[in-house]
Amino acid sequence: MRGARIAAVTQTSIPSSDPPPQGGLAEADQATVDLLGLLAYGELTAFERLATDARMSPTLGDKIALAAMAAAEFSHFQAVCAELDRLGVDRERAMAPFVAPLTTFHNSTAPADWLESLVKAYVGDNIAADFYREIAARLPAPSREIVLRVLDDTGHAVFAVERVRAAIEANPTVAGRLALWARRLVGEALTQAQRVGVDRDALTGLLVGVGDLDALAAIFNRIMAAHGRRMSALGLSA
Amino acid sequence: MRGARIAAVTQTSIPSSDPPPQGGLAEADQATVDLLGLLAYGELTAFERLATDARMSPTLGDKIALAAMAAAEFSHFQAVCAELDRLGVDRERAMAPFVAPLTTFHNSTAPADWLESLVKAYVGDNIAADFYREIAARLPAPSREIVLRVLDDTGHAVFAVERVRAAIEANPTVAGRLALWARRLVGEALTQAQRVGVDRDALTGLLVGVGDLDALAAIFNRIMAAHGRRMSALGLSA
Repeated sequence: MRGARIAAVTQTSIPSSDPPPQGGLAEADQATVDLLGLLAYGELTAFERLATDARMSPTLGDKIALAAMAAAEFSHFQAVCAELDRLGVDRERAMAPFVAPLTTFHNSTAPADWLESLVKAYVGDNIAADFYREIAARLPAPSREIVLRVLDDTGHAVFAVERVRAAIEANPTVAGRLALWARRLVGEALTQAQRVGVDRDALTGLLVGVGDLDALAAIFNRIMAAHGRRMSALGLSA
Repeated sequence: MRGARIAAVTQTSIPSSDPPPQGGLAEADQATVDLLGLLAYGELTAFERLATDARMSPTLGDKIALAAMAAAEFSHFQAVCAELDRLGVDRERAMAPFVAPLTTFHNSTAPADWLESLVKAYVGDNIAADFYREIAARLPAPSREIVLRVLDDTGHAVFAVERVRAAIEANPTVAGRLALWARRLVGEALTQAQRVGVDRDALTGLLVGVGDLDALAAIFNRIMAAHGRRMSALGLSA
């Protein structure tokens, strides 16, 4: 059973002269494995980043709060890995295709200070989460439920909003710099998402499977509208 | 009850013209609070350091292993904090005296690469753990048991020993550099331990309470002998 699943998954990622399966079980499986792998590596890097950002915390209380969120991300990572294990898929192999794009994203958006790290975690993680949710809705159970559960906010939203708003209140000129920073984050995220989309047919297949371009545009609009609401919550212009 | 404990604890740390209590309940309580505070901040920085070092991991598997150990350190941190809560002591206040010495130690011993970070975590954390165990043995229950439990190895020992030995086997010249590095770590650790000892009478009081200088020397010799065995396990000369 375990072996059969691995074979099915491997098969769809090997280039073949046969026409690729259209929306069949094998393709759905590959999309599931891709989303779980992407999410697992995303949680692992979120863990690393929050733990590293904790060093920039202005107070001991902030440091503890950030460390607790990092630990929560790691337990999400473990939940996704457990699902990969259940599917009989090698976790490192599932994560491998997403190491380069996520590393590039993080290297090109290293926060210069505590506020930039808060905005990055809040804005970046939530755009990614919204995107993952759109894909997850099209996955089979129980992977769908596991993905939706680990996407639950770890308390970072309230934490980030409170601190960023307080910083802007204390010094309104901060808002311009952080708004520019958020725009750069979105740009880099879209660049890397496009790269993933080009490389991972099964993943994009699920989204294309929603039907026509209008449906795709609706997904994109929903994600950007939610982003705009988060920017407003921070007190920043989108 | 909660309030009374806080008052008792606070009282011993306020300078007073009365002679300080000698080995009484209040002093034991202050020593407990000090050790828990030191340990809590130690676990928090261990968490940060392991999570940061995970970024230097040569493989994805190493990164995951280090992240898992970091998460384990954070759960130890939470266990110590729960004990501080139970004693009615503010956790940040208990940690505060140890922020500067631990930060100085870590800033002055930032590892230059993956191998240095492994040696630091293995050598440094275990010397600290041995020292905490000597103090903990003199604490009242249940704080004693909680301290001893969180000092349990999180799997880092085997992990570090395997990887450092393999690196030395592949390139024997590495051993000299790492042995020097370990000596520097011990030197910096002793410098900061001395600083803590001078500032925190209750903590040193517990150790001095063991009796004479011979007994103190015996503790120090036990700790250094265990350090020597760990250096041998790594394939390094102490």
